[in-house]
Amino acid sequence: MDSIKRRSDCPVNLSLEVFGDKWTLLVLRDIIFFGHRHFRDFVQLESISTNILTERLKRLVDNGILKKEIDKDNQSSYIYSITQRGLDLVPIVIDMYHWGAIHVEGNNADVNYLKRVTGERNKVIKEITQKLKKEHHVK
Amino acid sequence: MDSIKRRSDCPVNLSLEVFGDKWTLLVLRDIIFFGHRHFRDFVQLESISTNILTERLKRLVDNGILKKEIDKDNQSSYIYSITQRGLDLVPIVIDMYHWGAIHVEGNNADVNYLKRVTGERNKVIKEITQKLKKEHHVK
Repeated sequence: MDSIKRRSDCPVNLSLEVFGDKWTLLVLRDIIFFGHRHFRDFVQLESISTNILTERLKRLVDNGILKKEIDKDNQSSYIYSITQRGLDLVPIVIDMYHWGAIHVEGNNADVNYLKRVTGERNKVIKEITQKLKKEHHVK
Repeated sequence: MDSIKRRSDCPVNLSLEVFGDKWTLLVLRDIIFFGHRHFRDFVQLESISTNILTERLKRLVDNGILKKEIDKDNQSSYIYSITQRGLDLVPIVIDMYHWGAIHVEGNNADVNYLKRVTGERNKVIKEITQKLKKEHHVK
Protein backbone atom coordinates (compact mmCIF):
# COMPACT_ATOMS: atom_id res chain seq x y z
CA MET A 1 0.00 0.00 0.00
CA ASP A 2 1.49 3.29 -1.12
CA SER A 3 0.29 5.07 2.00
CA ILE A 4 3.08 3.48 4.03
CA LYS A 5 6.47 4.56 2.72
CA ARG A 6 9.69 4.33 4.72
CA ARG A 7 9.05 1.36 6.93
CA SER A 8 10.89 2.42 10.05
CA ASP A 9 8.74 5.58 10.21
CA CYS A 10 5.59 3.57 9.59
CA PRO A 11 2.99 4.32 12.29
CA VAL A 12 2.60 0.60 13.08
CA ASN A 13 6.31 0.23 13.73
CA LEU A 14 6.41 3.39 15.85
CA SER A 15 3.41 2.21 17.86
CA LEU A 16 5.05 -1.15 18.46
CA GLU A 17 8.23 0.56 19.65
CA VAL A 18 6.11 2.20 22.36
CA PHE A 19 3.82 -0.62 23.52
CA GLY A 20 4.66 -3.68 21.40
CA ASP A 21 5.42 -6.21 24.08
CA LYS A 22 3.30 -8.55 26.13
CA TRP A 23 3.97 -7.04 29.55
CA THR A 24 3.24 -3.47 28.54
CA LEU A 25 -0.10 -4.52 27.10
CA LEU A 26 -0.89 -6.63 30.18
CA VAL A 27 -0.26 -3.63 32.43
CA LEU A 28 -2.73 -1.67 30.28
CA ARG A 29 -5.23 -4.54 30.47
CA ASP A 30 -4.93 -4.49 34.29
CA ILE A 31 -5.70 -0.77 34.34
CA ILE A 32 -8.58 -1.06 31.87
CA PHE A 33 -10.29 -4.23 33.13
CA PHE A 34 -9.22 -4.55 36.77
CA GLY A 35 -8.88 -0.92 37.83
CA HIS A 36 -5.31 -1.49 39.05
CA ARG A 37 -3.26 1.61 39.79
CA HIS A 38 -0.47 0.57 42.16
CA PHE A 39 2.78 -1.35 41.75
CA ARG A 40 1.57 -3.86 44.36
CA ASP A 41 -1.45 -4.63 42.14
CA PHE A 42 0.45 -4.95 38.85
CA VAL A 43 2.96 -7.26 40.48
CA GLN A 44 0.25 -9.94 40.58
CA LEU A 45 0.49 -10.00 36.75
CA GLU A 46 1.08 -13.42 35.23
CA SER A 47 4.57 -14.25 36.62
CA ILE A 48 6.06 -10.83 35.84
CA SER A 49 9.35 -10.04 37.57
CA THR A 50 9.53 -6.81 39.56
CA ASN A 51 12.48 -5.65 37.38
CA ILE A 52 10.48 -6.02 34.18
CA LEU A 53 7.42 -4.41 35.76
CA THR A 54 9.50 -1.44 36.95
CA GLU A 55 11.00 -1.00 33.47
CA ARG A 56 7.64 -1.29 31.66
CA LEU A 57 5.89 1.16 34.00
CA LYS A 58 8.76 3.63 33.53
CA ARG A 59 8.50 3.27 29.75
CA LEU A 60 4.73 3.83 29.87
CA VAL A 61 5.28 6.98 31.95
CA ASP A 62 8.16 8.19 29.70
CA ASN A 63 5.91 7.74 26.66
CA GLY A 64 3.08 9.71 28.22
CA ILE A 65 0.66 6.78 28.41
CA LEU A 66 0.60 6.75 32.22
CA LYS A 67 1.23 9.43 34.86
CA LYS A 68 2.95 8.55 38.16
CA GLU A 69 2.16 10.65 41.25
CA ILE A 70 2.35 10.34 45.02
CA ASP A 71 -0.86 8.73 46.23
CA LYS A 72 -2.83 11.31 48.22
CA ASP A 73 -4.39 8.51 50.29
CA ASN A 74 -1.01 7.01 51.16
CA GLN A 75 1.95 9.38 50.93
CA SER A 76 4.46 6.52 50.97
CA SER A 77 3.00 5.04 47.79
CA TYR A 78 2.73 6.02 44.11
CA ILE A 79 -0.45 5.89 42.09
CA TYR A 80 -0.59 5.52 38.28
CA SER A 81 -3.18 7.29 36.14
CA ILE A 82 -3.94 6.76 32.48
CA THR A 83 -3.63 9.72 30.08
CA GLN A 84 -5.51 10.53 26.86
CA ARG A 85 -2.74 8.77 24.89
CA GLY A 86 -3.36 5.72 27.05
CA LEU A 87 -7.13 5.93 26.66
CA ASP A 88 -6.61 5.83 22.89
CA LEU A 89 -5.21 2.31 23.38
CA VAL A 90 -8.50 1.01 24.83
CA PRO A 91 -9.76 -0.05 21.34
CA ILE A 92 -6.64 -2.17 20.78
CA VAL A 93 -6.99 -3.95 24.13
CA ILE A 94 -10.71 -4.56 23.46
CA ASP A 95 -9.89 -6.00 20.03
CA MET A 96 -7.30 -8.31 21.62
CA TYR A 97 -9.96 -9.46 24.10
CA HIS A 98 -12.29 -10.13 21.17
CA TRP A 99 -9.70 -12.05 19.14
CA GLY A 100 -8.64 -14.21 22.09
CA ALA A 101 -12.24 -14.93 23.06
CA ILE A 102 -13.05 -16.06 19.51
CA HIS A 103 -9.85 -17.83 18.53
CA VAL A 104 -8.04 -19.28 21.55
CA GLU A 105 -9.35 -22.39 23.24
CA GLY A 106 -9.70 -22.43 27.02
CA ASN A 107 -10.27 -18.71 27.38
CA ASN A 108 -12.57 -17.59 30.17
CA ALA A 109 -14.48 -14.87 28.32
CA ASP A 110 -17.93 -14.13 29.69
CA VAL A 111 -20.49 -14.99 26.98
CA ASN A 112 -22.59 -11.88 27.57
CA TYR A 113 -19.60 -9.57 27.66
CA LEU A 114 -18.25 -11.09 24.44
CA LYS A 115 -21.66 -10.49 22.82
CA ARG A 116 -21.43 -6.83 23.80
CA VAL A 117 -17.84 -6.48 22.56
CA THR A 118 -18.88 -8.07 19.25
CA GLY A 119 -22.14 -6.21 18.69
CA GLU A 120 -21.57 -2.90 20.47
CA ARG A 121 -17.80 -2.41 20.25
CA ASN A 122 -17.90 1.39 20.05
CA LYS A 123 -20.34 1.64 22.95
CA VAL A 124 -18.19 -0.63 25.15
CA ILE A 125 -15.07 1.41 24.34
CA LYS A 126 -16.90 4.66 25.12
CA GLU A 127 -18.16 3.32 28.48
CA ILE A 128 -14.70 2.12 29.55
CA THR A 129 -13.06 5.34 28.40
CA GLN A 130 -15.55 7.57 30.21
CA LYS A 131 -15.25 5.54 33.42
CA LEU A 132 -11.44 5.72 33.35
CA LYS A 133 -11.51 9.41 32.43
CA LYS A 134 -13.56 10.14 35.53
CA GLU A 135 -11.65 7.88 37.93
CA HIS A 136 -8.20 8.93 36.70
CA HIS A 137 -9.10 12.62 36.33
CA VAL A 138 -8.00 12.74 32.68
CA LYS A 139 -8.24 16.29 31.36
CA MET B 1 -14.44 -5.96 35.64
CA ASP B 2 -16.14 -9.18 36.71
CA SER B 3 -16.19 -10.50 33.16
CA ILE B 4 -12.50 -11.33 33.34
CA LYS B 5 -11.86 -13.90 36.05
CA ARG B 6 -8.74 -16.06 36.20
CA ARG B 7 -6.16 -13.82 34.64
CA SER B 8 -4.00 -16.37 32.88
CA ASP B 9 -7.08 -17.56 30.94
CA CYS B 10 -8.08 -14.00 30.14
CA PRO B 11 -8.59 -13.58 26.38
CA VAL B 12 -6.18 -10.62 26.29
CA ASN B 13 -3.39 -12.69 27.85
CA LEU B 14 -4.08 -15.64 25.54
CA SER B 15 -4.05 -13.33 22.50
CA LEU B 16 -0.74 -11.84 23.61
CA GLU B 17 0.77 -15.30 24.02
CA VAL B 18 0.01 -15.87 20.32
CA PHE B 19 0.97 -12.55 18.72
CA GLY B 20 2.14 -10.25 21.53
CA ASP B 21 5.57 -9.29 20.28
CA LYS B 22 6.83 -6.64 17.94
CA TRP B 23 8.20 -8.91 15.20
CA THR B 24 5.07 -11.03 14.91
CA LEU B 25 2.95 -7.92 14.47
CA LEU B 26 5.43 -6.43 11.96
CA VAL B 27 5.22 -9.61 9.85
CA LEU B 28 1.44 -9.21 9.87
CA ARG B 29 1.79 -5.54 8.94
CA ASP B 30 4.01 -6.53 5.99
CA ILE B 31 1.36 -8.96 4.76
CA ILE B 32 -1.50 -6.50 5.27
CA PHE B 33 0.07 -3.29 3.96
CA PHE B 34 2.88 -4.43 1.65
CA GLY B 35 1.50 -7.66 0.21
CA HIS B 36 4.59 -9.60 1.29
CA ARG B 37 4.34 -13.38 1.18
CA HIS B 38 7.90 -14.75 0.99
CA PHE B 39 10.73 -15.13 3.49
CA ARG B 40 12.94 -12.99 1.23
CA ASP B 41 10.42 -10.11 1.55
CA PHE B 42 9.93 -10.34 5.31
CA VAL B 43 13.68 -10.38 5.84
CA GLN B 44 13.73 -6.70 4.83
CA LEU B 45 11.82 -6.01 8.07
CA GLU B 46 13.38 -3.40 10.33
CA SER B 47 16.69 -5.12 11.29
CA ILE B 48 15.10 -8.51 12.03
CA SER B 49 17.51 -11.45 12.25
CA THR B 50 16.77 -14.48 10.08
CA ASN B 51 16.62 -16.68 13.22
CA ILE B 52 13.92 -14.55 14.80
CA LEU B 53 12.02 -14.29 11.51
CA THR B 54 12.12 -18.08 11.07
CA GLU B 55 10.84 -18.60 14.62
CA ARG B 56 8.06 -16.00 14.31
CA LEU B 57 6.84 -17.33 10.96
CA LYS B 58 6.79 -20.86 12.40
CA ARG B 59 4.81 -19.64 15.40
CA LEU B 60 2.30 -17.85 13.14
CA VAL B 61 1.87 -21.06 11.11
CA ASP B 62 1.62 -23.24 14.26
CA ASN B 63 -1.08 -20.92 15.59
CA GLY B 64 -3.09 -21.08 12.37
CA ILE B 65 -2.64 -17.40 11.51
CA LEU B 66 -0.58 -18.12 8.39
CA LYS B 67 -0.37 -21.10 6.03
CA LYS B 68 2.96 -22.15 4.46
CA GLU B 69 2.92 -23.92 1.09
CA ILE B 70 5.26 -24.59 -1.81
CA ASP B 71 5.01 -21.66 -4.21
CA LYS B 72 3.38 -22.88 -7.43
CA ASP B 73 5.26 -20.20 -9.38
CA ASN B 74 8.63 -21.25 -7.95
CA GLN B 75 8.81 -24.80 -6.63
CA SER B 76 12.02 -24.11 -4.70
CA SER B 77 10.33 -21.43 -2.61
CA TYR B 78 7.59 -21.28 0.03
CA ILE B 79 4.68 -18.87 -0.04
CA TYR B 80 2.76 -17.70 3.06
CA SER B 81 -0.99 -17.08 3.02
CA ILE B 82 -3.12 -15.47 5.69
CA THR B 83 -6.01 -17.46 7.22
CA GLN B 84 -9.34 -16.30 8.63
CA ARG B 85 -7.75 -16.19 12.11
CA GLY B 86 -5.12 -13.89 10.63
CA LEU B 87 -7.67 -11.73 8.86
CA ASP B 88 -9.36 -11.18 12.23
CA LEU B 89 -6.16 -9.40 13.32
CA VAL B 90 -6.52 -6.72 10.62
CA PRO B 91 -8.54 -4.43 12.97
CA ILE B 92 -5.74 -4.54 15.57
CA VAL B 93 -3.05 -3.62 13.02
CA ILE B 94 -5.25 -0.81 11.66
CA ASP B 95 -5.77 0.53 15.18
CA MET B 96 -2.00 0.44 15.78
CA TYR B 97 -1.52 2.43 12.55
CA HIS B 98 -4.09 4.94 13.82
CA TRP B 99 -2.53 5.28 17.26
CA GLY B 100 1.00 5.71 15.87
CA ALA B 101 -0.18 8.23 13.28
CA ILE B 102 -1.91 10.33 15.95
CA HIS B 103 0.50 9.99 18.85
CA VAL B 104 4.08 9.41 17.67
CA GLU B 105 6.09 12.26 16.22
CA GLY B 106 7.96 11.73 12.97
CA ASN B 107 5.60 9.09 11.61
CA ASN B 108 5.09 9.05 7.86
CA ALA B 109 1.33 8.46 7.77
CA ASP B 110 -0.39 9.66 4.64
CA VAL B 111 -2.86 12.41 5.62
CA ASN B 112 -5.63 11.14 3.37
CA TYR B 113 -5.20 7.54 4.44
CA LEU B 114 -5.26 8.57 8.10
CA LYS B 115 -8.49 10.47 7.46
CA ARG B 116 -10.02 7.30 6.03
CA VAL B 117 -8.78 5.14 8.91
CA THR B 118 -10.24 7.67 11.38
CA GLY B 119 -13.58 8.29 9.68
CA GLU B 120 -14.26 5.02 7.86
CA ARG B 121 -12.44 2.43 9.98
CA ASN B 122 -14.88 -0.40 9.30
CA LYS B 123 -14.89 0.26 5.56
CA VAL B 124 -11.07 0.29 5.42
CA ILE B 125 -10.91 -3.00 7.36
CA LYS B 126 -13.48 -4.57 5.05
CA GLU B 127 -11.61 -3.48 1.92
CA ILE B 128 -8.26 -4.83 3.18
CA THR B 129 -9.85 -8.08 4.35
CA GLN B 130 -11.67 -8.67 1.06
CA LYS B 131 -8.53 -7.95 -0.98
CA LEU B 132 -6.43 -10.35 1.12
CA LYS B 133 -9.18 -12.98 1.08
CA LYS B 134 -9.14 -12.97 -2.70
CA GLU B 135 -5.36 -12.84 -3.16
CA HIS B 136 -4.62 -15.48 -0.49
CA HIS B 137 -7.56 -17.71 -1.43
CA VAL B 138 -8.98 -17.72 2.10
CA LYS B 139 -11.96 -20.04 2.35
